[in-house]
Amino acid sequence: MTPLTPNASFSMTLRLQVPNRSEILIKLTEGIAETGAELGDLILVEKLAEHSIRVLTFAASSEDHAQWVLAVLKDLPGVQVLAAEDRTFALHQGGKISVESKSPLKNQDQLSRGYTPGVGRVCQAIHQNPELAFTYTIKPHTVAIVTDGSAVLGLGNIGPLAALPVMEGKAMIFKEFAGLDAFPVCLDTQDTEAIIATVQYLAPVFGGINLEDISSPRCFEIEERLRDLLDIPVFHDDQHGTAVVLLAALLNALAIVEKPLAEIKVVFNGVGAAGMACTQMLQQAGVRHIVGCDRSGAIYLGRTANMNSVKERYAQITNPQGEQGSLGDVLRGADVFVGLSGPGLVTLEDIQGMATKPLVFALANPVPEIAPEVAGPHVAVMATGRSDYPNQINNALAYPGIFKGALDCRARCINEVMKQAAAQALAGLILPAERRPGYIIPSVFDPRVVPAVAQAVAQAARETGVARLP
Amino acid sequence: MTPLTPNASFSMTLRLQVPNRSEILIKLTEGIAETGAELGDLILVEKLAEHSIRVLTFAASSEDHAQWVLAVLKDLPGVQVLAAEDRTFALHQGGKISVESKSPLKNQDQLSRGYTPGVGRVCQAIHQNPELAFTYTIKPHTVAIVTDGSAVLGLGNIGPLAALPVMEGKAMIFKEFAGLDAFPVCLDTQDTEAIIATVQYLAPVFGGINLEDISSPRCFEIEERLRDLLDIPVFHDDQHGTAVVLLAALLNALAIVEKPLAEIKVVFNGVGAAGMACTQMLQQAGVRHIVGCDRSGAIYLGRTANMNSVKERYAQITNPQGEQGSLGDVLRGADVFVGLSGPGLVTLEDIQGMATKPLVFALANPVPEIAPEVAGPHVAVMATGRSDYPNQINNALAYPGIFKGALDCRARCINEVMKQAAAQALAGLILPAERRPGYIIPSVFDPRVVPAVAQAVAQAARETGVARLP
Repeated sequence: MTPLTPNASFSMTLRLQVPNRSEILIKLTEGIAETGAELGDLILVEKLAEHSIRVLTFAASSEDHAQWVLAVLKDLPGVQVLAAEDRTFALHQGGKISVESKSPLKNQDQLSRGYTPGVGRVCQAIHQNPELAFTYTIKPHTVAIVTDGSAVLGLGNIGPLAALPVMEGKAMIFKEFAGLDAFPVCLDTQDTEAIIATVQYLAPVFGGINLEDISSPRCFEIEERLRDLLDIPVFHDDQHGTAVVLLAALLNALAIVEKPLAEIKVVFNGVGAAGMACTQMLQQAGVRHIVGCDRSGAIYLGRTANMNSVKERYAQITNPQGEQGSLGDVLRGADVFVGLSGPGLVTLEDIQGMATKPLVFALANPVPEIAPEVAGPHVAVMATGRSDYPNQINNALAYPGIFKGALDCRARCINEVMKQAAAQALAGLILPAERRPGYIIPSVFDPRVVPAVAQAVAQAARETGVARLP
Repeated sequence: MTPLTPNASFSMTLRLQVPNRSEILIKLTEGIAETGAELGDLILVEKLAEHSIRVLTFAASSEDHAQWVLAVLKDLPGVQVLAAEDRTFALHQGGKISVESKSPLKNQDQLSRGYTPGVGRVCQAIHQNPELAFTYTIKPHTVAIVTDGSAVLGLGNIGPLAALPVMEGKAMIFKEFAGLDAFPVCLDTQDTEAIIATVQYLAPVFGGINLEDISSPRCFEIEERLRDLLDIPVFHDDQHGTAVVLLAALLNALAIVEKPLAEIKVVFNGVGAAGMACTQMLQQAGVRHIVGCDRSGAIYLGRTANMNSVKERYAQITNPQGEQGSLGDVLRGADVFVGLSGPGLVTLEDIQGMATKPLVFALANPVPEIAPEVAGPHVAVMATGRSDYPNQINNALAYPGIFKGALDCRARCINEVMKQAAAQALAGLILPAERRPGYIIPSVFDPRVVPAVAQAVAQAARETGVARLP
């Protein structure tokens, strides 16, 4: 297992007092380099007679690593660490989102229009014609980010309170990337019925419901039931967000290796929420030969060990030839590997058994099923879930644009056609001439992503008759 | 009944093309004056050879009134109305609040600290020590404004969607007046148990719960049960907000007429949520003689007609002498009238039967129990719920400061002592030398209000041991 590369997640800001001797700065940069950390900014704040005040940021690969860097710098002759701040925790201080008033309330004129008595007129108008809520309230551009904290990132069941920073982060992304207003709803229950009822009760304020980090198999029933109950989009991002981005990347990767969708064999490792959704999305797109694996190997109709309702279902819709055996066994001759499982679960031997020009999507986060450094030289295209390697399969490429598209046309739901359209739009942002093994999916910072996805999703909504606006 | 005075609630903005002849502007101002409307701004946008473009705002007293003004102006020779906009609906367009990201997400450094992978470190820290949620999430300064839409303003049971503009308005007030982040929770259920369960499930994200516009008697049980279930403040504003401001105003009014709290007789008309809470608050402050009335007259122990559980309770804690009869009957000799009922329910004769120097709080909104123009000359102090008369008893004087105080010290609840302290602080903002019949309570725009209330509430929380921060 290769160690994590230094990244901003473990970065620090230091305020240093440094003697005014140039060799000290050299030692300082040497010290950071020797620990394997990465120097970021080095800013001269103030130069005094004997020493200077400098602010320095560096990225490490873990908390221990960061502490080691700190210790090294403290040991430099004459250097004093005046303050040290963890940049990740600093960003979260006080929370990451705020609720703002769109207009001031500085005088009676404003207050009596925005609040009583004027607001009563608007309430009455909506009471008489509920459609007016889409004009005179926050509903049309507001998304609930709903979690029960049962499957948060790779951290597992940490509960609703500890999940809040993720939901706030998601609300940031909705705003900064798509201009939507999203609010975290972290529920202090993991009971399926209670979650369904609660979201149903909350729905009036929202134009869409983004389900997030809810564990399998409850996530399937919760999404399905809420889709039936509500007339606004309900979208479990862990399932469909991942699936849309995976399909987009796969389309471009297959174009590079010149293999048609209908003829490839895809092997999944991990059939939780994302695995099931990715499988179905690929099938909808035309992939016919998919085999899923879990810890016990291939999932097939009739397997008895280590099964559950989701895997039963999975066995019914995949593995047409009833293949059995280990992950390595079924990977033999496969064209595509998709890992949605855990660190290091695939060996180089497994990969070397695949068909020619294999595509490897090792999406376990933060540590992939196989390191790109190891597998990379042996595959045609390598993708991960990480931002510090090429081809990051990142949900954030999908959900901001999908919700924006759905809300823009006031869609009643987000259906299969809309998701397929989102994947096609994402893939299409990379022109044939630009496609290469290290560039099969655009960056989340590509400003074309959200408009392209939103436009495709809205058009698909109109074409499938679920849009309420023309 | 006197007609409503023109107010911003029914104001319009007109874009006019006006011939360049001074007599037209005179006719324009005359026309507005003749309809009884009030001219606001008159702005010259552009002067051309023959005519000018002017933007004009005016306030009317109703929608019909505004339409009449419009018709009058359209009839003026050479005047063309290019555009007409209802200023209240215009303010609500697109909703009145937004969710904003506190920091940008323009690059990988920011994204990997605010979202994955960095956010996972913050989640883990909170999972290990839940108190850290008060440092690294929005929880400590975020309030849920919870309604079921069952008793919205004076509009009644208009449901959760139509109630949303009020809750957004309240969120604006929380932000603009107290710097708190509040979010509307409009529940699509009016079932007591469902509301209690839903709010309990939602609680992790919030530092406090503001219950709003929930009808009596369910509001009592919902508040009581949630106070027991949650370790954050739960406050039904319609009850306690009104009560705090009423008590503050009463304290100053009594100082003017030099009557001690313990010796006055107070008659309430209307014993819903606010009536019950105001009664209890006055009793806590030392008022001993209170009689409540409803449509059937005085409420007394043993009355059988038109009773319910709330009125039974009310009869047990008030009316020590078991007075019976009409509102007019029990008002005879009373020192204070508090109306929380409906328009025009008190006659001048009723008022004239009160003790000397009577205090009249006719709080029905928008049309008081008796018009200030009618009662005013016969009473020592007159207060209403309206912003266009002196002495407005406005909840907004209470809840922003109360929540700010409670959240600042991380109080577990808002108890009686904290509410009494809020009322005392509000009353104390008017110095003895400033007190007069037309100034017994500060304006909601008085910048001293929120800091004074918050400070008093936080201190009371500390003194009663419910504050988690020293």
